[in-house]
Amino acid sequence: MDEKEIDDRKDQLRVVLDTGNRDCIIEALEEFPPAFIIEILEDKTEYEIIKFLQMIEVEEAGRIFSYFSADKQYDLKKTLDKRVFASIFTYMFSDVRADLFQSFQKEEQIEILPYLDKKTREDVIVLSAYEPETAGGIMSTDFATIVINMTCKQAIAKIRHDAPSQKMIYYIYVVNDDMEMLGMITIKDLIMADPKDIVRELYNDNFIYADVNADREYVASEIERHDLIAIPILNSLNQLVGIVTHEEAIDVIRAEQTEDMEKFMGIVPSEDELSYLHTTAIQHFKKRVVWLVVLAAVGLISGVIVHHYQNVLEQLIILALYMPMMTATGGNTGSQAATVVIRAMALQEASEKEWLSILFKEARISFMLSICVGGLVFVKIAFLTSYSLLPDNFTFPFLGFIISLSIALQVMTSAIVGAGLPLLVRRLGGDPAVAASPAITTTVDITGLLIYFGIASYALQL
Amino acid sequence: MDEKEIDDRKDQLRVVLDTGNRDCIIEALEEFPPAFIIEILEDKTEYEIIKFLQMIEVEEAGRIFSYFSADKQYDLKKTLDKRVFASIFTYMFSDVRADLFQSFQKEEQIEILPYLDKKTREDVIVLSAYEPETAGGIMSTDFATIVINMTCKQAIAKIRHDAPSQKMIYYIYVVNDDMEMLGMITIKDLIMADPKDIVRELYNDNFIYADVNADREYVASEIERHDLIAIPILNSLNQLVGIVTHEEAIDVIRAEQTEDMEKFMGIVPSEDELSYLHTTAIQHFKKRVVWLVVLAAVGLISGVIVHHYQNVLEQLIILALYMPMMTATGGNTGSQAATVVIRAMALQEASEKEWLSILFKEARISFMLSICVGGLVFVKIAFLTSYSLLPDNFTFPFLGFIISLSIALQVMTSAIVGAGLPLLVRRLGGDPAVAASPAITTTVDITGLLIYFGIASYALQL
Repeated sequence: MDEKEIDDRKDQLRVVLDTGNRDCIIEALEEFPPAFIIEILEDKTEYEIIKFLQMIEVEEAGRIFSYFSADKQYDLKKTLDKRVFASIFTYMFSDVRADLFQSFQKEEQIEILPYLDKKTREDVIVLSAYEPETAGGIMSTDFATIVINMTCKQAIAKIRHDAPSQKMIYYIYVVNDDMEMLGMITIKDLIMADPKDIVRELYNDNFIYADVNADREYVASEIERHDLIAIPILNSLNQLVGIVTHEEAIDVIRAEQTEDMEKFMGIVPSEDELSYLHTTAIQHFKKRVVWLVVLAAVGLISGVIVHHYQNVLEQLIILALYMPMMTATGGNTGSQAATVVIRAMALQEASEKEWLSILFKEARISFMLSICVGGLVFVKIAFLTSYSLLPDNFTFPFLGFIISLSIALQVMTSAIVGAGLPLLVRRLGGDPAVAASPAITTTVDITGLLIYFGIASYALQL
Repeated sequence: MDEKEIDDRKDQLRVVLDTGNRDCIIEALEEFPPAFIIEILEDKTEYEIIKFLQMIEVEEAGRIFSYFSADKQYDLKKTLDKRVFASIFTYMFSDVRADLFQSFQKEEQIEILPYLDKKTREDVIVLSAYEPETAGGIMSTDFATIVINMTCKQAIAKIRHDAPSQKMIYYIYVVNDDMEMLGMITIKDLIMADPKDIVRELYNDNFIYADVNADREYVASEIERHDLIAIPILNSLNQLVGIVTHEEAIDVIRAEQTEDMEKFMGIVPSEDELSYLHTTAIQHFKKRVVWLVVLAAVGLISGVIVHHYQNVLEQLIILALYMPMMTATGGNTGSQAATVVIRAMALQEASEKEWLSILFKEARISFMLSICVGGLVFVKIAFLTSYSLLPDNFTFPFLGFIISLSIALQVMTSAIVGAGLPLLVRRLGGDPAVAASPAITTTVDITGLLIYFGIASYALQL
């Protein structure tokens, strides 16, 4: 759809919502995508939103309410009458509801519980007890179950009877009386089968599942790997306690991506996922300061090296001119190499066991890069430099050779360090993304200065 | 599932496949996840795989074949008998099939067409004509349709009749005789409805769709935004020509993520998505060399600045000791700021219209950071330095003040540049990720040297 059409649709919807005609609104709610409805409601005052939520049926209100941002949900909760809020809360998506409940103060949690029916109350308490980074922390309980000795017709009848609007019924889970999961069947299989067939003969007991304590990244990668719409989540007793859907998987993949980029830039990823502008300056500061100060401290080592070679520098002050460019080029080369290697490992295109092929490949790539960068510097120094002071035995071509050789070696070293550091971190059991770009830059600053002054002092015969 | 269990399952499957018992194998194929089957088959010789594919039913062979990597598919194709391959090809997933067809040489394409039935032939030709970066390039034609005046019972009967194993039937598309899309209905709605209800009264005509020429990233983001299992793809005549599923959306999100990281590190993203080790050294070289050489050339400007302040440096050679650390810290700060701002824009948490709040926030964050880093450097120089040569009017605390003030200003400037550059690129209509980390590093190297020597020369009263 192009933007104009999207705007037209939203305008249509806005008009319907503004009429205040209950029947029209209820029909529109079924037809229009929730993302549009939420966008229109977010322009309205809290009073108008509340009026709207009370006008429509409570099941619908629960569903729509689930799509608001966490902040908005909390704001609305504070304004809504307790009893009204409790009934909307009952019909929210189970995973969103548990997240909202977790964000409450202790007193707010206790306050709402008496207004909930037993089933909802238990569901909320159980779900909100899981760690947010685990399968339990992101799962929902909106799934449909059948038992093994039903016919397909009976199974479909049970699903029709059980399933309110939230439930995912594309995969139907087969459980016994103790809620132990025996297998699953897709709604497609149920429909395609003869209505008299027994579930026992059709269901799949070699299903993929995840443990309730599994890392959420693992859960998302299983959904991705097996192209699932949802993955069942089991507890240690093999009981089906929830499902994680493909939508959650996408959210996890996005969050993981942000985390990787932040780590890679030496930013400590935060637990709570507040947006950039909602995070306070002091929180941002805390996420960045550790690495920055650590690296600055390590960077002081580069001063020790320069100090050590002070006499070289004093005799050949022109070396100082190419120092910033040399460290920068090393950092760029190292970061490029680290990026592709970390990415290749994240996408499982390469593993740390292949370190030799990876380093060999980087050696060949960086050899070619070093010729280009070295050549550039040689041409600049040998032919384009007008500089007064050179020691007696030095000519510009000779100096150009010395400096461009150093820079070429620096490019090769940096590529090897950039590719090797993430491999090493992985080998030691860490997350390769922490072999962050700033860490690599700082490392190759040091190796670079050693190469640079080492070669120059050798040439000066000091 | 823990690793042991996964291995057990795979062992089980391996045993079944090795028996060569056709019935057992066919049952196993239905039960075990395709990812496992492929992993086991990939350990086998080509001859064994071909024997296996010919043993099972051709529909199953087509489905399993679709899960092999593109390279493997092509290798197998070359070994398989033309007629056998054509029948397997017919039953592949339509999107994978079109991709495979696109990878053929012209003669190979012409060679296979006569072996295909008319419907498959047309499908392959049409699908493989779309650009790979568009909706058309990633869509499949494995969807189910119904017409508007059917009852729900008739609709379900039609789906049962039409849908072979590949088809996505969770969303059913309502079309007219010209394949113009009128709306959609979920299989859930069909099941929950009274069998006598007419589709016309139930279907949703305010559906979300994408144009066949839309960018694939847009398609993926629509699937994500509206939590869809699949999105219908329409041509300019509003005809339903395909669907893009949530699995494809995840693939696109992953690919986009790699592209962003590469851009951010000054690597030119490649069109073809070869894995790290399958890309040749020369291809890697080409992706990296442009930025590296451009930045090295720009980096030569830093030499001009140092040259300009040569007399300052000669009088106070200790300045050279803190030069590498200062440029590195600036680069780190700038890259951190750029990362969070680019990420916030990518996740639509912040827009370039909020540039003032973003820059103001970065100013506050970097003020705090600059105190920490500046403090560290001041302590080092004022109290921990044993250095022989200082000009007469200089003391270590004074020198520490000069240098740490420069570094503090450098941290603040770098954060503003790091946050501002992506905002500026976006404002000018570009992709903020190209305001890459190396570009920022090189920029702040130059501003940093100006600050550093500017302040020092003022203090030296030169």
